[in-house]
Amino acid sequence: MPSQDHMKQALQTYVDALNAADAATVTGLYADDAVIEDPVGHPPISGRAAIEEFYANAIAGGAKLTLDAPIRGSHGDRAAMAFTVDVPGMRVHAIDVMTFDAEGKIVRMEAHWGPDDIET
Amino acid sequence: MPSQDHMKQALQTYVDALNAADAATVTGLYADDAVIEDPVGHPPISGRAAIEEFYANAIAGGAKLTLDAPIRGSHGDRAAMAFTVDVPGMRVHAIDVMTFDAEGKIVRMEAHWGPDDIET
Repeated sequence: MPSQDHMKQALQTYVDALNAADAATVTGLYADDAVIEDPVGHPPISGRAAIEEFYANAIAGGAKLTLDAPIRGSHGDRAAMAFTVDVPGMRVHAIDVMTFDAEGKIVRMEAHWGPDDIET
Repeated sequence: MPSQDHMKQALQTYVDALNAADAATVTGLYADDAVIEDPVGHPPISGRAAIEEFYANAIAGGAKLTLDAPIRGSHGDRAAMAFTVDVPGMRVHAIDVMTFDAEGKIVRMEAHWGPDDIET
């Protein structure tokens, strides 16, 4: 199981790399067969190509993330964070939960935000 | 599927009722066969009796919750919140994810906090 430090650093790297428009660093946090459910309740995407497309779009859209509170770990293989995403003309309040594999890669990302969590 | 308003109100009620030491209101948010994994990574508990004992202990311990950011919904059956729990001598930073059934009751609660998320 990855350490608390490893998981929390991965989430911090995720925020920092997205804000730096560094898609390769973000997607490099993921395992090849990872699943992304963003938002929770929509059909998930999975696999390297889909993940790369997902973050290319996020970065092209100008998404900038700000943590709302310190990143949380767990007593298992998950870490979570509450943050706000600003894209031009829109703000989204989200909570992401990431699940890690034994090698420390993210195997699942679940983004909790609903229709009411968007400000335009 | 429960509405966004219903789920967010349930989480707000959870916070308010715990802070009011109102165990019956908190446990009434749960379905009879609900599962609580708190913290994530420890064996879950389930069922009415276990849930009532869990919150009786939390209230006896003097737990007081403060939201760190607005409650998040989803596009499905889940809602999430980042909060801080103060008990005498200890502070815990957590993110809870609640899953709801069609009747609007919580069927699963997962609390993300790790050993490093405790301040003493």
